[in-house]
Amino acid sequence: MGTVVIDVMLKSEILDPQGQAVAGALPRLGFTQFTDVRQGKRFELTVDGEVTGEVLAAAREAAEKLLSNPVIEDVVRVAELTDETAGQPA
Amino acid sequence: MGTVVIDVMLKSEILDPQGQAVAGALPRLGFTQFTDVRQGKRFELTVDGEVTGEVLAAAREAAEKLLSNPVIEDVVRVAELTDETAGQPA
Repeated sequence: MGTVVIDVMLKSEILDPQGQAVAGALPRLGFTQFTDVRQGKRFELTVDGEVTGEVLAAAREAAEKLLSNPVIEDVVRVAELTDETAGQPA
Repeated sequence: MGTVVIDVMLKSEILDPQGQAVAGALPRLGFTQFTDVRQGKRFELTVDGEVTGEVLAAAREAAEKLLSNPVIEDVVRVAELTDETAGQPA
């Protein structure tokens, strides 16, 4: 069983009120090192078998057609979920 | 200028209506290879300087305190945004 991760972010020229709310809250909690915050979406799509090139291509097409609005959003990442791409857990 | 990526997903035992809506829509668009979909959040935090271990530690703390609700969500990834972690663009 494999998992494909798709990340979608608002284009940089699009206003991001959610991100701004977080950016405004961080200094109040003592986190002063962050100058900007953008908030986007992360999808995890499960497949029964292995994540093949074909599955990744389908995921990329689904990302463009269904999971993002190409007018205001960019698909920034379509990749198999591995220990590496998952990064260190917090 | 560096960027820290933080990914937050609902815990697996928590119902995810958004993910279910996507999972229901995919087959109608011809994408039959995906058996499950979960939707979460992705944050990009910008810092002025380099992404040091200290910055990552602060980001991890912010992720736990502000960006996620530990009762229903897991912080699945706190990492510096690099070409590698960004994955191939769609």
